[in-house]
Amino acid sequence: MILTVTLNTALDLTYRVRSLRPHTSHRVSEVAERPGGKGVNVARVLAALGHEATVTGFAGGATGRLVRERLSGTPGVTDALVPVAGATRRTIAVVDELSGDTTQLNEPGPQIEPAEWGAFLDRYDELLPAASAVALCGSLPPGVPVGAYANLVRRARSFGVPVLLDTSGEPLRRGVAARPDIIKPNADELAELTGSHEPLRATQNARRRGAHAVVASLGVQGLLADTPEGRWRAAPPARVHGNPTGAGDSAVAGLLSGLVERLPWPDRLARAVALSAATVQAPAAGEFDRAVYEKLSERISVPRETTAP
Amino acid sequence: MILTVTLNTALDLTYRVRSLRPHTSHRVSEVAERPGGKGVNVARVLAALGHEATVTGFAGGATGRLVRERLSGTPGVTDALVPVAGATRRTIAVVDELSGDTTQLNEPGPQIEPAEWGAFLDRYDELLPAASAVALCGSLPPGVPVGAYANLVRRARSFGVPVLLDTSGEPLRRGVAARPDIIKPNADELAELTGSHEPLRATQNARRRGAHAVVASLGVQGLLADTPEGRWRAAPPARVHGNPTGAGDSAVAGLLSGLVERLPWPDRLARAVALSAATVQAPAAGEFDRAVYEKLSERISVPRETTAP
Repeated sequence: MILTVTLNTALDLTYRVRSLRPHTSHRVSEVAERPGGKGVNVARVLAALGHEATVTGFAGGATGRLVRERLSGTPGVTDALVPVAGATRRTIAVVDELSGDTTQLNEPGPQIEPAEWGAFLDRYDELLPAASAVALCGSLPPGVPVGAYANLVRRARSFGVPVLLDTSGEPLRRGVAARPDIIKPNADELAELTGSHEPLRATQNARRRGAHAVVASLGVQGLLADTPEGRWRAAPPARVHGNPTGAGDSAVAGLLSGLVERLPWPDRLARAVALSAATVQAPAAGEFDRAVYEKLSERISVPRETTAP
Repeated sequence: MILTVTLNTALDLTYRVRSLRPHTSHRVSEVAERPGGKGVNVARVLAALGHEATVTGFAGGATGRLVRERLSGTPGVTDALVPVAGATRRTIAVVDELSGDTTQLNEPGPQIEPAEWGAFLDRYDELLPAASAVALCGSLPPGVPVGAYANLVRRARSFGVPVLLDTSGEPLRRGVAARPDIIKPNADELAELTGSHEPLRATQNARRRGAHAVVASLGVQGLLADTPEGRWRAAPPARVHGNPTGAGDSAVAGLLSGLVERLPWPDRLARAVALSAATVQAPAAGEFDRAVYEKLSERISVPRETTAP
């Protein structure tokens, strides 16, 4: 199984309104609820690709109960969340019917107590021996040490389990120093980590900091990968329109599934880009359109990047 | 006890953000949760004034469980909500830290099935004999007949229980025709009901349609009451600043408590205005500031309205 860690799980709500106008009142015409947090999204895509995925992290309160109820109804996904006293956060995506644009409101998440963090580490160590790969995803809730991901990367490495890290800021900086197998920053996260806004230079800098491979997601320009086996670019054949929510998580699922299937890097990248584009085009945020995915997977070219940084 | 009916109860969330900007992402710095819906707010204020209040209406799902958990911790408020299969709606008030302005997002509420509406009517009839007054408050959830309030007004009158109706649109139009003792429309609701934007003319029109007394809430101008005993105006001595959420519900609690205490109309109106202003000035939306209330209650003049409409 593939293990995904979501320390700050969420109940993701999508609200449809005519057009969001600050300081006025809105009737929400449609409400969708689903379990969220990056690692949960990754697990759902992995399961859809035919992999067994196990979700760990924290869940608590009425929102946590809803997250767990919904997860238990997702085939291929096993719930190994650790209960906490605080309530799982909500995230709200407010979608304008007129423009399709989205406004995001993210609650901070519950305070995690030291004993709860300890219980999580025990659960993580129990799960690692059965894992073929681990993804560490998203922000840290209040109370979790800022070096949490560095600790989790080191534990995974000590069990010989390949580990992908997808986070930002100081948790990313510290996590990278613990030598994860893959990091998947976006352009802003990569620039914040390395101080460079030039992607080729920045990915090389991130590898010097400790990441074995860096897959930078550059929005409409697709992915730029800098790995021990070489450098590649991968982008969809045409610009895709839609809702980018979850596109990065689908890319992570593509990279991880490709890793455990021992695909060569270009195939992993093609899969990640196709899944990502199929997620942008899906009607529901964070789902992916299987027909688009299958059509695109054949059509993504992954040229070697030959420019010197 | 005073019975308040909230057919569309809510879990009211208040989010604090730096400044709401459409089509961007926001970290919510603070989350507050409380049971809501107009009748629930009215009951909370009644209890704070020393009255026993009973809350009925519908509650369901994880959000409904949270509403009931919180209500059970509110002294003076008795939970007589009827369980439904659908989930109680959420409302979200997004408060800008910079300006204090609020953006409101209201979910529509659960679909009520005919059997659930029937179960509510049975519960309502059981509760009425013990009630000294009834308040019928707020919007109707999907599935409840548009003539619901007219039905509830007639039932209350058949038990000899005075009834206050605070709603809008077609449910108000039909409810008024059933001859409630008091309606409390705001300026827009009154204009929609009567076709007149001239408050004196409009209150008189609303009484001709069936309301025994009309108390129009005219924002900063306070209240205008047209009753069988006479016409009065009541306004706070100075303009109050703050968050108007729940101010109308506090006014309803003032009117209802004054009714069951058999206060003369001017005293009821002074209390309603003082509670309303004390709610606007309270730091938390929908709470009232007791010191402000007590200070103001002595200082509100309620002149007779002598102008002919």
